[in-house]
Amino acid sequence: MDRIKVAVMGCTGLVGQQFVRMLHNHPFFTIHALTSSARSAGKKYGETLSWAVEGEIPEPMRELVILETSVESILKTGARIVFSALPASIAEKIESILRGYGLFIFSNASAHRFDEDVPILIPEINSDHLEIVKRQLARTKGFIITNSNCSTSGLAMMLKPLEPFGIQSAIVTTFQSISGAGRRGLSAMDIASNVIPFIKNEEEKIETESRKILGKFDGLKIVNRDMIINASCCRVPVREGHLMGLVIEFEKDVDVRTVENALSLFRGVPQEKRLPTAPEFPIVVRHEEDRPQPVLDIYAGSPERARGMAVTVGRIRKKGRLLNLFLLVHNTIRGAAGTCILNAELALMKRFIRADQTATGGGQE
Amino acid sequence: MDRIKVAVMGCTGLVGQQFVRMLHNHPFFTIHALTSSARSAGKKYGETLSWAVEGEIPEPMRELVILETSVESILKTGARIVFSALPASIAEKIESILRGYGLFIFSNASAHRFDEDVPILIPEINSDHLEIVKRQLARTKGFIITNSNCSTSGLAMMLKPLEPFGIQSAIVTTFQSISGAGRRGLSAMDIASNVIPFIKNEEEKIETESRKILGKFDGLKIVNRDMIINASCCRVPVREGHLMGLVIEFEKDVDVRTVENALSLFRGVPQEKRLPTAPEFPIVVRHEEDRPQPVLDIYAGSPERARGMAVTVGRIRKKGRLLNLFLLVHNTIRGAAGTCILNAELALMKRFIRADQTATGGGQE
Amino acid sequence: MDRIKVAVMGCTGLVGQQFVRMLHNHPFFTIHALTSSARSAGKKYGETLSWAVEGEIPEPMRELVILETSVESILKTGARIVFSALPASIAEKIESILRGYGLFIFSNASAHRFDEDVPILIPEINSDHLEIVKRQLARTKGFIITNSNCSTSGLAMMLKPLEPFGIQSAIVTTFQSISGAGRRGLSAMDIASNVIPFIKNEEEKIETESRKILGKFDGLKIVNRDMIINASCCRVPVREGHLMGLVIEFEKDVDVRTVENALSLFRGVPQEKRLPTAPEFPIVVRHEEDRPQPVLDIYAGSPERARGMAVTVGRIRKKGRLLNLFLLVHNTIRGAAGTCILNAELALMKRFIRADQTATGGGQE
Amino acid sequence: MDRIKVAVMGCTGLVGQQFVRMLHNHPFFTIHALTSSARSAGKKYGETLSWAVEGEIPEPMRELVILETSVESILKTGARIVFSALPASIAEKIESILRGYGLFIFSNASAHRFDEDVPILIPEINSDHLEIVKRQLARTKGFIITNSNCSTSGLAMMLKPLEPFGIQSAIVTTFQSISGAGRRGLSAMDIASNVIPFIKNEEEKIETESRKILGKFDGLKIVNRDMIINASCCRVPVREGHLMGLVIEFEKDVDVRTVENALSLFRGVPQEKRLPTAPEFPIVVRHEEDRPQPVLDIYAGSPERARGMAVTVGRIRKKGRLLNLFLLVHNTIRGAAGTCILNAELALMKRFIRADQTATGGGQE
Repeated sequence: MDRIKVAVMGCTGLVGQQFVRMLHNHPFFTIHALTSSARSAGKKYGETLSWAVEGEIPEPMRELVILETSVESILKTGARIVFSALPASIAEKIESILRGYGLFIFSNASAHRFDEDVPILIPEINSDHLEIVKRQLARTKGFIITNSNCSTSGLAMMLKPLEPFGIQSAIVTTFQSISGAGRRGLSAMDIASNVIPFIKNEEEKIETESRKILGKFDGLKIVNRDMIINASCCRVPVREGHLMGLVIEFEKDVDVRTVENALSLFRGVPQEKRLPTAPEFPIVVRHEEDRPQPVLDIYAGSPERARGMAVTVGRIRKKGRLLNLFLLVHNTIRGAAGTCILNAELALMKRFIRADQTATGGGQE
Repeated sequence: MDRIKVAVMGCTGLVGQQFVRMLHNHPFFTIHALTSSARSAGKKYGETLSWAVEGEIPEPMRELVILETSVESILKTGARIVFSALPASIAEKIESILRGYGLFIFSNASAHRFDEDVPILIPEINSDHLEIVKRQLARTKGFIITNSNCSTSGLAMMLKPLEPFGIQSAIVTTFQSISGAGRRGLSAMDIASNVIPFIKNEEEKIETESRKILGKFDGLKIVNRDMIINASCCRVPVREGHLMGLVIEFEKDVDVRTVENALSLFRGVPQEKRLPTAPEFPIVVRHEEDRPQPVLDIYAGSPERARGMAVTVGRIRKKGRLLNLFLLVHNTIRGAAGTCILNAELALMKRFIRADQTATGGGQE
Repeated sequence: MDRIKVAVMGCTGLVGQQFVRMLHNHPFFTIHALTSSARSAGKKYGETLSWAVEGEIPEPMRELVILETSVESILKTGARIVFSALPASIAEKIESILRGYGLFIFSNASAHRFDEDVPILIPEINSDHLEIVKRQLARTKGFIITNSNCSTSGLAMMLKPLEPFGIQSAIVTTFQSISGAGRRGLSAMDIASNVIPFIKNEEEKIETESRKILGKFDGLKIVNRDMIINASCCRVPVREGHLMGLVIEFEKDVDVRTVENALSLFRGVPQEKRLPTAPEFPIVVRHEEDRPQPVLDIYAGSPERARGMAVTVGRIRKKGRLLNLFLLVHNTIRGAAGTCILNAELALMKRFIRADQTATGGGQE
Repeated sequence: MDRIKVAVMGCTGLVGQQFVRMLHNHPFFTIHALTSSARSAGKKYGETLSWAVEGEIPEPMRELVILETSVESILKTGARIVFSALPASIAEKIESILRGYGLFIFSNASAHRFDEDVPILIPEINSDHLEIVKRQLARTKGFIITNSNCSTSGLAMMLKPLEPFGIQSAIVTTFQSISGAGRRGLSAMDIASNVIPFIKNEEEKIETESRKILGKFDGLKIVNRDMIINASCCRVPVREGHLMGLVIEFEKDVDVRTVENALSLFRGVPQEKRLPTAPEFPIVVRHEEDRPQPVLDIYAGSPERARGMAVTVGRIRKKGRLLNLFLLVHNTIRGAAGTCILNAELALMKRFIRADQTATGGGQE
């Protein structure tokens, strides 16, 4: 199988860099275009950038000249899949138009997450939601698939294996790293030796996205999961990794050992199908008294290609019908670029994308 | 009134330094002795110390020679009140013995917090618990009064004014500063750009102490408040100030405005009696979208002497019967030395200590 | 003497806030106007602001409505002295025009530092340079007096008392705090757990300003001091205070004790004249093996009004003709607002400003 | 060739962990024993440890039971090479005794660095100093080879290629990361948002070690390089990587371009001989205005096995006969474990160790 040509929109930010890093030498995909705003467009990727993610800029990407993000520039490249790390405000329109031209959009932007026929996909949790894109394909040539907000990805991963025990409510308090605010999103003076107990729209995203992700696809639409999700979000002076304290109220008593097993043995479609970016186990349960910790645990997940794709959980404690735990998710890998790529792998494996297909015509939205 | 001679045990640590700072020019008390372990004993206070709290070492304290902590050294000084910032393991015995000699011990150590006749006193909340020291005085010449754990002081202050609304449970997640671990308690490599989701015994202290503090003194004993307190404690890379996310479940619907008023108007005995270290209002409600923050709000409280004695609360939100908020407490002032001094002021005002009384004899415990 | 009405231009930034804090209850000056860019203009000072300097917003300032920075708005206020914390690009023109209207401008902006008839004034070092403003007054009604760049203020203070020993060169390496980049000047992701070995134009400023400040006023012009100053500037993840490593090469051997005495006994005109913002001694020599440190020493300087106005020096070592030391300066107090206010106090004391004078007419530049 | 059995003494600290990481799958060496103090001895390596270096604990090491550091325990293992990450005070004696038994000690400890017949070896710089171990072998069966202090390794690497231009003096100011103080060496409260301008013995080590490393081996002894090295050392709140500001005074004018070429093209014996841990180029010259930075550049060096082995230099500027630059060295890789392993590779390649040799008898020191 020839590798499918892909483009990365918004290639200079932290999520864009993770796309570039994780798509390097990918068995299914090969980057043919990188786009950014006018500020960096026209420059070589290796020159314009402060590379801030693991390792070095992949050699072949260094010389690639960045295109300015636009429908035309993307269409010219011949890319059939587009990974989007655009800001929501910009993503909304261009993603729709590109879909109309028959492109397959995998987007980390929040713009389309609540479109009725667009799934918020986390393949371990709701791979069946992928089916809903058929509704998109019924009216246009391409589709948009979103992944969730960074914190949501960790929370939802934790809740899914515990659903059988009867979850009444989930109260989550986040310790989110500064990388989640983007490369220039937070001023140093504001966060140095400080905690900021507010992240714009984050609590709403966590609460609404979780209910959709854990919802039921009834063949036609996604019916939200009815569950109390209560989120309180803070920024902490940590470079990478979102830690969360989670308190789950169950309908009845649960056993800690049973919970630990349900979490540590949890596997989904990506694991069964051995998708390239899937971690062997998506949840790592730690038993030390003081884990997970951002600096020690953010890169959980094996094999190599899945580093950062496993969510780590620890300090599982039970008090009556309340279960307490801490979880950690790599916000720009599992919480962004990594799941987005995993979604594309799933769509390819499920033949929603065929390797020999060509994007043509269209644009009528 | 002559000022009463006091001693500070454990004067070199952060809490000890706050005692020294806050007792300087105190209208009721005057420091006559400072004690520490053998390592610093014999040296001048101004020479042995890295002063790490606000302002400069009070001039008169610079030349004071530190005594080694022992019953004998304390008794010799003629101090009638002892403020204790000792580690719990050392505090247990020496505090008991000194009480036997008729001294009045105000202790930040946890050793005696759950003695049946010792109150965990926060004067705004449970000033009536002070009465229980009469049981101590019935069998020995002095008494021990403790203040709570640092995080508990903030939590309990928040819960007290909301009790009338019917609290079912309180779920608290803490963001605790490194000063809470003491001057040498935490290694730099462990916390740099990291969060540690574990503080030894902290969750247990918060849960048990809150129930005693909010408990009812029935004239004979303190009956714990029956309430679910669920705590998850983390260390964050912040120098000072413990932030906490709090979710309170009420028995019935509450109104945010009503809650804000209850908090911001809350005043207790220290405010009525105008105790020197009492803040005008013990709770400051902030309405900005991103407060409280440690670097901006830890010194809440006026007048000058009460800086750091007010607890700040913000982001009060309601979702059904759940109320969310963030609170911030200065861990070594309101959470330690400050409340301890306020307790002594209350005891003096309530005539549990008389200014003309002399500590004598005793020691039979 | 009535207090002179002053305005602060650029009141919302960190330096602007220090002006407001330090001018509160000032014996000579009283704030009548605060200005900022259009973004904050029209709002009350207490509402628009994240106060980020010591203590609380002075009560009378809370209700003051911020004006938009403009010649007209300043002239209307009746202020006779203007303290400027504007960015250099904006300061250049408006400061000149206001001078033309007879106002006395004390500016922290770099725009006019190298105008031939404008001094870079640090009263302890070059109070005689003040005379050069007579050249300004000969052609227009007001004057502009600048203070130096933040790092330069610490370096120059160190070099002045050592000049008699014959300085050949000074090699300085800076550890500058993030507050020096302004409230929003540096992104959190760039500096978290990092050092950035570059601060735009800083090395040039240190090298050129020092030579002018230490230069000789010959009655007509300032003749730069001929001396090698070699600066290397870094940003470090520290909130406040610029630390510097300094290596001075002397013409001949010097004695450490002699150097220490020269530094610790150094006093200038502000000390002799007991200016309100002058520290009793402008240089504090510490003898511990590990000082000065930003968190412990930035507020050096007494009395209360002069906190942060003393430069701290430590680890003075000699190796042959090289002398090594570390110095620390509070970058927004001694390095900015504090020296600027001290300059105004000096000008008033030297009768360059008369208390009964009124700014009128003018504007012809 | 069979891989040679090696032991790592002091395996739990940060340098010990780097040894374990870098020796995993090493083409020449294989770990047969790990030792530590009594506190961890007897436990499995994977259980006792907070792994704090890149990647995961190598799988085969997880189950290895740690031995207590002692002559007996090492001898029993059959290891022929010992890598030592012991504290200097413990290293001194045990390294000597093990040498007497015919073992080849490659030590990161400072204990023997100034023994007359022990080299401080950095293979790119002074591979000929290796010859001096023949003097050790003349009197005993094994040898000790040390590497330098962490900061020295970066400084010496910079000075070597510039020697032909005539260096008169080198003034270095360091920004050293907290990992350099070891896992528990520095308290969080001391360094949070702070700089500490003192590291015990560090300045002396840099000054004396550099002169020995750059010295001339005359066939009998190492004659120190006569050169002024002036060091000022600071600890900064950075996790990993030592940055240094360097000012070199040359005898005559030098050209920046010439210097850059000399640095970027510099290669030594490890490069010629393609030693496994040798970076292709030991010095990476960066041309951006704000590099090197710890978080971006500490892992300089390729191929994979040599990550962290290249020293990065940037901001090369010339002012008269002074050359300014910043350099960055990974303190626990190039500055410790990595160079130590490179030394062993060199010794093997130069046949100072033969693969078939067995350590026997001895111990007479």
